[in-house]
Amino acid sequence: MAPGSAYPIDPAGETGFTVEAASMKFGPGMLGELGGDARGLGLKRVAVFMDQRVADTEPAQAALASLRREGVDGVVYDRVRVEPTSETFLEAAAFAREAGVDGFISIGGGSVIDTAKAANLYATHPADFLAYVNKPLGEGRPVPGPVKPHIACPTTCGTGSETTGVAIFDHVEKKVKTGISSRWLRPTLAVVDPTTTYSLPPGVVAATGFDVLTHAIESHTARPFRSRPRSETPQLRPPYQGANPWSDIGSLQAIRLGGLYLERAVADPSDLEARDQLMFAATLAGLAFGNAGVHIPHAMSYSVAGMNHRFVASGYESAPPMVPHGISVVLNAPAAFRFTGPAAPERHLRAAEALGADIRGVGPEGAGAVLADRLVALMRATGLPNGLSGIGYAEDDIPALAAGAIAQQRLLSIAPLPVGEQDLHGLYRDAMRYW
Amino acid sequence: MAPGSAYPIDPAGETGFTVEAASMKFGPGMLGELGGDARGLGLKRVAVFMDQRVADTEPAQAALASLRREGVDGVVYDRVRVEPTSETFLEAAAFAREAGVDGFISIGGGSVIDTAKAANLYATHPADFLAYVNKPLGEGRPVPGPVKPHIACPTTCGTGSETTGVAIFDHVEKKVKTGISSRWLRPTLAVVDPTTTYSLPPGVVAATGFDVLTHAIESHTARPFRSRPRSETPQLRPPYQGANPWSDIGSLQAIRLGGLYLERAVADPSDLEARDQLMFAATLAGLAFGNAGVHIPHAMSYSVAGMNHRFVASGYESAPPMVPHGISVVLNAPAAFRFTGPAAPERHLRAAEALGADIRGVGPEGAGAVLADRLVALMRATGLPNGLSGIGYAEDDIPALAAGAIAQQRLLSIAPLPVGEQDLHGLYRDAMRYW
Repeated sequence: MAPGSAYPIDPAGETGFTVEAASMKFGPGMLGELGGDARGLGLKRVAVFMDQRVADTEPAQAALASLRREGVDGVVYDRVRVEPTSETFLEAAAFAREAGVDGFISIGGGSVIDTAKAANLYATHPADFLAYVNKPLGEGRPVPGPVKPHIACPTTCGTGSETTGVAIFDHVEKKVKTGISSRWLRPTLAVVDPTTTYSLPPGVVAATGFDVLTHAIESHTARPFRSRPRSETPQLRPPYQGANPWSDIGSLQAIRLGGLYLERAVADPSDLEARDQLMFAATLAGLAFGNAGVHIPHAMSYSVAGMNHRFVASGYESAPPMVPHGISVVLNAPAAFRFTGPAAPERHLRAAEALGADIRGVGPEGAGAVLADRLVALMRATGLPNGLSGIGYAEDDIPALAAGAIAQQRLLSIAPLPVGEQDLHGLYRDAMRYW
Repeated sequence: MAPGSAYPIDPAGETGFTVEAASMKFGPGMLGELGGDARGLGLKRVAVFMDQRVADTEPAQAALASLRREGVDGVVYDRVRVEPTSETFLEAAAFAREAGVDGFISIGGGSVIDTAKAANLYATHPADFLAYVNKPLGEGRPVPGPVKPHIACPTTCGTGSETTGVAIFDHVEKKVKTGISSRWLRPTLAVVDPTTTYSLPPGVVAATGFDVLTHAIESHTARPFRSRPRSETPQLRPPYQGANPWSDIGSLQAIRLGGLYLERAVADPSDLEARDQLMFAATLAGLAFGNAGVHIPHAMSYSVAGMNHRFVASGYESAPPMVPHGISVVLNAPAAFRFTGPAAPERHLRAAEALGADIRGVGPEGAGAVLADRLVALMRATGLPNGLSGIGYAEDDIPALAAGAIAQQRLLSIAPLPVGEQDLHGLYRDAMRYW
């Protein structure tokens, strides 16, 4: 057992990990050759999912022009909600069925890509909505097989959705976020064109940039894959496997790039290098968390976002009030890393150093704090709300927030130590205010 | 233009790079669940390619037992030659056609995996042998489409073949190595089980370990992808794209692991951690070079191996005389990196440092030498031949060696500076003796 590790490495435990890697293309201008990519996949008629803001941008227009040039018929669906719900998923699936398409293209943030994944799934393998939704809210039934080809083109630097098999949505009745997970939902090709982020307001770059950072830091501090019991068959190995030598490489590099470029990308919209690098960090972080998993900050975020439909974040003024995903996660992160630090001090120190903290003289007992402090400094520097109180939560909300978070066992089980509902009460309390 | 870079970054040049990532599974014991993997791919009857040495090992027997347990019919083909030729490729394809299989499993070194790739290709898309072979020796015709599922299980730490779309063979008449390259040849799943290397003799670990290191260092020192002209369509972007931010991450980590563990893995066969880590380095290096490409040392190796069928390397006593691939490459590498150093000094310095060299006080002009010297020290420490003279070559052979190497334009074009036939004469001369 590694010193301080809450989950011992079990000698009879898991010995292997899998990498379900997606094909990707990265670079400024890549959306201008989307038609060639679609044709390469044999597509003749595609549903193009985007929201109206994206549809008006130059890179999206270049993508549509490229489809036309290559003779690929594109049917645009632009009724995507910024934070999707079960209803918007099913509407999109109905559209896809009626449009008779042989493939999907999504150009947008995580909401748009996730909506396309869900539409593809329910159009290809019709079922009651809750059938494929993760337990315990849904039945968690396995997706029966391949869906249609899907080219995912992220336009924000946060999602990671372009390389994962996960689609997240708001469960409106239960006031909580949950999702659908299957390797079949992973897009066939991710086309990551950072020019799509050049027109984003600084507030959106900050919110999505912190999503990148938390993906990367949570992957890096997740419990080690070898602490899990060994899977009896390859099919039973979970998509979120815990930290492993593969995810560690991507997560550390994403943390480094985030530490170097997040502030620059928010402060100066003309700093294109910073936006390019942040977008590449997002890609790496997405690969890392799609493989290792995310834990407490994300588990806590679902009720933070699900219970609050009043907050209007900087840069999101034209959307309905809601807590942007990256903000709903990072507001919990400093509290969470102070809590998880003692369970995996080396990993927290390494993450803190990669993020740009000075870790000289910091011992294992200070590992969580030095990481949390560096994250808080970045949050202040980029204009984020001061903890959960900054978006309107108060002590009274803690029981309901914790009740929502404890339901996220799929994520909590990836934390580097066991987490109970009382722990979550304390974590939400610590997350109320940071400065 | 970066200082000292022989290929300027062209403002109208390539702006993007692709990642054709393979699905992988890594860990001791993973061959014991191969039947589950085959069943997961829907396979009912598979051709199992291995050589006789591998067939007798415990991990291979565990793989066959797992296939039986899961009801997957395995037809073993064990007539694979250690360094395959056009004849052995075609024999294997004939076997695959007659056996009526719906998929392929290869358990072995690069020769076995490459033979399975070729058998899969010619059994699925029959053609004259030279049709798909790389130009200029072959016609370089594109593979028309998907081949059957192929699970590749490397048993040496050198090949990288499990994640690439390349199959290499000896062209017997022309006395040169060449290959077939297509994204369709990339195995469906790579199962990397380091227990397969536990029984390898030290000489084999050394030869294959240096193949890992040269894959990684050549990928890291390859010309930058942005120095290539921009591809007109996605289909025309070459598989070997030059160094890029994706390949850089994997190549650097592979160099680090090789620097830490190669000597240990050779010196002490009971050091299982070293063999595990070297195998993971091999996987990372394979991903990096499959994406960025390799250059001069590999281009030079083809005639080194092709012209010499007399050498018997330590650990290869039971095979017909030949120069193992890793040895045929690394013997050229110190000479090559001294030559390429001035064209990309930062990359050579970074590689040298990752490999464990002390680079304090080394300026750009010494970048190639410090990397070469560290590599030579590793070669001496692991019992490798002292340059090309150590395997029987002399000055008289240089024109023929260089004539073979200059034909490898696909690789030479990835070097960080232009390479002519006279340069190759000098490089072979420098590679004759290192200490």
